[in-house]
Amino acid sequence: MGIITLTTDLGHKDFYQAALKGSIISLYPTVRLVDVSHDIAPFNIQQAAFVLKNAYRYFPKDTVHLIGIDSVFNKDTRYLAVKYKGHYFVGADNGIFSLLLDGDPEKAVELNIMQDLKFLHFPLTDIFAKAATHLAKGGTMEDIGDPVNSLVKRVIIQPIIDGDTIRGSVIYVDSFQNVITNISKELFNQIQQNRDFELFFRRNESIKHLSWHYNEVPEGEKLCLFGISNHLEIAINKGNASGLLGLQVGDIIRIEFKPVRQ
Amino acid sequence: MGIITLTTDLGHKDFYQAALKGSIISLYPTVRLVDVSHDIAPFNIQQAAFVLKNAYRYFPKDTVHLIGIDSVFNKDTRYLAVKYKGHYFVGADNGIFSLLLDGDPEKAVELNIMQDLKFLHFPLTDIFAKAATHLAKGGTMEDIGDPVNSLVKRVIIQPIIDGDTIRGSVIYVDSFQNVITNISKELFNQIQQNRDFELFFRRNESIKHLSWHYNEVPEGEKLCLFGISNHLEIAINKGNASGLLGLQVGDIIRIEFKPVRQ
Amino acid sequence: MGIITLTTDLGHKDFYQAALKGSIISLYPTVRLVDVSHDIAPFNIQQAAFVLKNAYRYFPKDTVHLIGIDSVFNKDTRYLAVKYKGHYFVGADNGIFSLLLDGDPEKAVELNIMQDLKFLHFPLTDIFAKAATHLAKGGTMEDIGDPVNSLVKRVIIQPIIDGDTIRGSVIYVDSFQNVITNISKELFNQIQQNRDFELFFRRNESIKHLSWHYNEVPEGEKLCLFGISNHLEIAINKGNASGLLGLQVGDIIRIEFKPVRQ
Repeated sequence: MGIITLTTDLGHKDFYQAALKGSIISLYPTVRLVDVSHDIAPFNIQQAAFVLKNAYRYFPKDTVHLIGIDSVFNKDTRYLAVKYKGHYFVGADNGIFSLLLDGDPEKAVELNIMQDLKFLHFPLTDIFAKAATHLAKGGTMEDIGDPVNSLVKRVIIQPIIDGDTIRGSVIYVDSFQNVITNISKELFNQIQQNRDFELFFRRNESIKHLSWHYNEVPEGEKLCLFGISNHLEIAINKGNASGLLGLQVGDIIRIEFKPVRQ
Repeated sequence: MGIITLTTDLGHKDFYQAALKGSIISLYPTVRLVDVSHDIAPFNIQQAAFVLKNAYRYFPKDTVHLIGIDSVFNKDTRYLAVKYKGHYFVGADNGIFSLLLDGDPEKAVELNIMQDLKFLHFPLTDIFAKAATHLAKGGTMEDIGDPVNSLVKRVIIQPIIDGDTIRGSVIYVDSFQNVITNISKELFNQIQQNRDFELFFRRNESIKHLSWHYNEVPEGEKLCLFGISNHLEIAINKGNASGLLGLQVGDIIRIEFKPVRQ
Repeated sequence: MGIITLTTDLGHKDFYQAALKGSIISLYPTVRLVDVSHDIAPFNIQQAAFVLKNAYRYFPKDTVHLIGIDSVFNKDTRYLAVKYKGHYFVGADNGIFSLLLDGDPEKAVELNIMQDLKFLHFPLTDIFAKAATHLAKGGTMEDIGDPVNSLVKRVIIQPIIDGDTIRGSVIYVDSFQNVITNISKELFNQIQQNRDFELFFRRNESIKHLSWHYNEVPEGEKLCLFGISNHLEIAINKGNASGLLGLQVGDIIRIEFKPVRQ
């Protein structure tokens, strides 16, 4: 049984999500459909990439991940199917693939299953559903598209390393209001080298201890930890960190590592 | 494998939706359940009709569409199963069927599978789940109800054609804040006859060009097009048309067609 | 085909829900997953218990109910699998089981399928998914845990009976804004003994009649009834009772039963 996951900004109140699911089921009656999220902020491909990048690894190989965001027809934007780490991704080449993948895809094709794209009304039902069901059934990428060599690159702000300092920024606030930064555990460990550190944010706030769990500090107190996404998070135990600490997407944070204790 | 879709105003936080799904699964363990929407505004059968009318066509024939809206017991309201264009619909005869169907149903029955409706607590689990699973398994309508001839009619405001003018109104605002009117593509084409037009709304706003895609104008600019519902929509490319243009459900819009160019 | 239901405070916008579902599907590709709710208020185990207590009965016996709320690792909190009335429940022993079950479980085990809980990142994918799929496949509780005798008790405010009066409180407000109290139909009937009554709330509000259906009073008028949860509810026919009557979770209500009419 093939699996198709859905990541879109379609929301839950309209008929769009049902139209997409009905189209997929009509083409592949026994497919398993899983919603990743339909609550991506409209057209926010960076948010969609963050969510799907962290979700797809939990699914079995050969799962097809349909990305329905910023996919209105545009003569300069190709519709793609991409293979990466044994998973398939179907979406518009609007830059999301460069945000989603940590390197080049194993394979990428431009979908050629529809001719008259100019009069296309709803790419999700008319093209993406067809491509996704084809792949979920075990069909080849060559059957539905022509090879492409390079994908649209979209640059996101990377942490800056400056001697014993990492400057990073907030990239996501989750529904618990935990504040997630662009500093990965890998980068942190590489620079830390077992040294003490202090994480600075806002005017005078700082945290000196790295927690493993949200509840290692008393309720209502701030902490930092590597959350489920393996990115450095600033949180408040059972509290609203984004609201109480005044941290939003785009805000800058700074980590200073101390000299090694002799 | 039978398919049952769900369109309700039950929301997502309570146990009502799970009670409905558990009831259906208990009766038909292998059924496929698809949520159309549970975010219909409470008791708003016009909104439910708009959403389901646009969604059901994407599903295979013989799909059963359960409508859980405004269905509390009422001695004057019958519970029906209706067949239309090869699809089944189960719901209360509160007028929604007249809004949903473009004409008479192929067949309609009043559900007779429960006697003591007066003490009914939750029609969705007690009656609708039973009727829907019966039909999804391939059972006949006659087995669960008595034929009815006419359904409750509910009138909605139709566009008014006055010479070279169509007066319509806003019937839905979607989650992207696109503004959808009651003017169908069919009606528009019939009156337009290839003439130029001007769409007027609010005090001084107008649009003279019909787009095919939301992104045919620069970001932040207004446009009109026939959206996925095939109704005339007023939108802003990547923007909030309802908010920025001040258009809400019930607002009037006007289209004036120009004399033919000689 | 096994069934796993999910009750969490994970919300819908993040990748957490998809991570949980992907983990479960990876372990049990044909399992049926049903969302009870992911919109429980963060860490609110009382709300989660109310929702799941009212939902689980609608599912077939042997269904596994995964409870993902307040389950961050804590050296004093055990992770349990519990059997009750033929259903399985998997969650943290944070008191929720005492709120959910009406008595002792048939069987309870502390999960022992993971050793190094201290470095656990996401108990829902790392432990709960494994335990739930094991049980949904028909595996035994003994295979995944060690017997426990007593569960953490969490006391909730019970109604107080004082002669001809019941004092209760609001425990839940549903998405229709119906106000649900902690007075069960069973308790009400036991004290009522066919007598007239008056339900008092706020300063001067009262209701003297028990309705069967929300629409037994004119639209916009208040009523009380035993809703789908079999708890006494205060509602307004097609209106927002919580908002208009100013009733919130924790507010006190009072029922006075009259002397028997001679």
